[in-house]
Amino acid sequence: MRTLSDVYIIGSGETKYGELWEKSLRELAVEAGLKAVEDAGIYSKDIGILYGSSSLAGSINGQNDIGSLIADFSGLASSNIPAIRVEASSASGAAAVREAYLAVRSGEYDVAMVGGVEKMTDIYGSETLDMVGTILDREWEWFMGATPAAMAAMTARKYMKDFKVEKESLAMLAVNDHENASKNPNAHFRNKLTLEGAMGATMIADPLNMMDCSPMSDGASAIVLASEKYVKAHKLDGIKILGSGISQDYLALHSRDSLYRLNSTVIAGRNALSKAGIKQSEVSFLEIHDSYSIYGLIELEDLGFAEKGKASQLVGDDIKLNGALPVNPSGGLKAKGNPMGATGVGQFVEAYLQFKGKAGERQIKNPQYGLLHNMAGTGSTSLVHIVGGA
Amino acid sequence: MRTLSDVYIIGSGETKYGELWEKSLRELAVEAGLKAVEDAGIYSKDIGILYGSSSLAGSINGQNDIGSLIADFSGLASSNIPAIRVEASSASGAAAVREAYLAVRSGEYDVAMVGGVEKMTDIYGSETLDMVGTILDREWEWFMGATPAAMAAMTARKYMKDFKVEKESLAMLAVNDHENASKNPNAHFRNKLTLEGAMGATMIADPLNMMDCSPMSDGASAIVLASEKYVKAHKLDGIKILGSGISQDYLALHSRDSLYRLNSTVIAGRNALSKAGIKQSEVSFLEIHDSYSIYGLIELEDLGFAEKGKASQLVGDDIKLNGALPVNPSGGLKAKGNPMGATGVGQFVEAYLQFKGKAGERQIKNPQYGLLHNMAGTGSTSLVHIVGGA
Repeated sequence: MRTLSDVYIIGSGETKYGELWEKSLRELAVEAGLKAVEDAGIYSKDIGILYGSSSLAGSINGQNDIGSLIADFSGLASSNIPAIRVEASSASGAAAVREAYLAVRSGEYDVAMVGGVEKMTDIYGSETLDMVGTILDREWEWFMGATPAAMAAMTARKYMKDFKVEKESLAMLAVNDHENASKNPNAHFRNKLTLEGAMGATMIADPLNMMDCSPMSDGASAIVLASEKYVKAHKLDGIKILGSGISQDYLALHSRDSLYRLNSTVIAGRNALSKAGIKQSEVSFLEIHDSYSIYGLIELEDLGFAEKGKASQLVGDDIKLNGALPVNPSGGLKAKGNPMGATGVGQFVEAYLQFKGKAGERQIKNPQYGLLHNMAGTGSTSLVHIVGGA
Repeated sequence: MRTLSDVYIIGSGETKYGELWEKSLRELAVEAGLKAVEDAGIYSKDIGILYGSSSLAGSINGQNDIGSLIADFSGLASSNIPAIRVEASSASGAAAVREAYLAVRSGEYDVAMVGGVEKMTDIYGSETLDMVGTILDREWEWFMGATPAAMAAMTARKYMKDFKVEKESLAMLAVNDHENASKNPNAHFRNKLTLEGAMGATMIADPLNMMDCSPMSDGASAIVLASEKYVKAHKLDGIKILGSGISQDYLALHSRDSLYRLNSTVIAGRNALSKAGIKQSEVSFLEIHDSYSIYGLIELEDLGFAEKGKASQLVGDDIKLNGALPVNPSGGLKAKGNPMGATGVGQFVEAYLQFKGKAGERQIKNPQYGLLHNMAGTGSTSLVHIVGGA
């Protein structure tokens, strides 16, 4: 009889995020994957399984079965390493990590790779928007003219009205993201942003302007997971996944209990913290899914770091890199970028770098626990993971 | 410390497969899912997680995140039951079952549902073909004009030449599929097929004619998996998943070792049999992924039921329902149909019905073990599962 294994992250790799016209979907995926294998100090053939995550490759790039694509192009297929794709909209990345985590934990594999990739610039204008609409409820939302930005804007309006929150509080999250991204060589946007600049950007869906919306990014992120047995046998070190939570709400926003409480985030967060056996106060930094700035505020509340309607009190100094609760040291979805299938994996890359002391100018001092939050679309599925140094 | 659990299938549900113009993607998925829950005799809220499988929903129907879609429309979201999608081309179904199997086996969940669905008739003609092309290597195969049928035809030509196999041997697999499907109320095609009819059909890609090619089907299949603890606590019965194997080959056909040896199938089959601790001779029936008739022959060989080039010796009486080795009692991909994301789950539905004695006119007497083989595209990923009565 076998028992459950602790699960480690032993390596990470990432491409730059951005508009990468010169690189294809497969090139991005393989670049990140090979970097992760090299970083882990293992051989590719030691990998037991590859979980590919991509939300839109089938829609945008006309390429499904991207697990096989990556396995083929990276040479993993020559060792017959199985490869499948996990898709959960913009939470595909963390969903793939969770499947890899369960597979290693159960003893099925000693080593699993997760590779997240998205190539969002290959088609243009309204077509890209149409593809992004595939993560909403197609028949009840998209066909009625709703876009992800419009949905987020509705939520923002009601939140700001009910809790008397000013637009500045949303903008300050973007300012923080850009500040951190300026220290991240892989970030999509490395320019610093002033509060005035954030407030004065082109309107997208009132009250959300361009600086409230994460960009369409190309990019790939990869991590290597391993069992305790493997880590010890090969004298590796790594960081640990201490808790994994996943939960669900309605896909269609109109069916939810509340426009500004993300039930899936509330439950996933609670479960992950409980499994890790820690409290919010022990968390050293957060990576949260701020695809739109309003979600950043709401998530801080739904993850238990502020009371409902009060997160704006945190977005001054507290969330800065040297603050009481650093948020999105990577630069977050707004400034590091949002290549959908890669985004959630990229949060693990950031955590790995932070715990290994490799985060450069954006290094947080002596982190104990990191909380990573990845969300599908407007909140249908949420995943929360707690990671810590091993 | 927890130990690994045995994994049971405790219920199944399925829609009819076919051109179902009056039903949408979500209606199909929910119909199959609710039937499975009812069949299992549990409450929906007892489900720990939903694995949705669909290969083409993001491409054909403009709907990604179909895990969330099903959870929403079926009411599972009201119990916050998490839902993700697994995609591995035409092997998405078995890949999703495997993820559910690992999740239950590791103790993460006591009950998991797998729902596979595809709605392939919603767009027409060349567009549907273009969408099916998303499961090939887009840049190296599809853009060069290759189609799945053309790839299978190349394989068939070389196989028939090298092993001096006549076209009749391929046709006899289709005849067998149609014979069995005539006894399956859910099958796409219930007409019996004569050898002459199979030989004389419209040519698609020489030597494969229309009767060598599985159809574009709409449909959904669902099963409910449960841990041993849950099954005993609730005095349920079910069938057991005794072994699960998955393996990989190159996505692009031109990179493979051989045109007519499916390495991924060879390895996945060997692993599944080894994990179940049984030999080929103990298998009572097979469900194999005969998306094109030539693959049926090759798979019988690569799964170890015939020597390479000799499977044509089996396709007479042996593969019939009352033969020594019944193949595709469900009607197989050719006649039960091939709604891609549902196909692999549908094989489990058939196995469940066979072991529960509920397969009606196509019932196999006292089955001991069933082998289920589901394959991605031209063989990039293969999954093999061994199931048996509990």
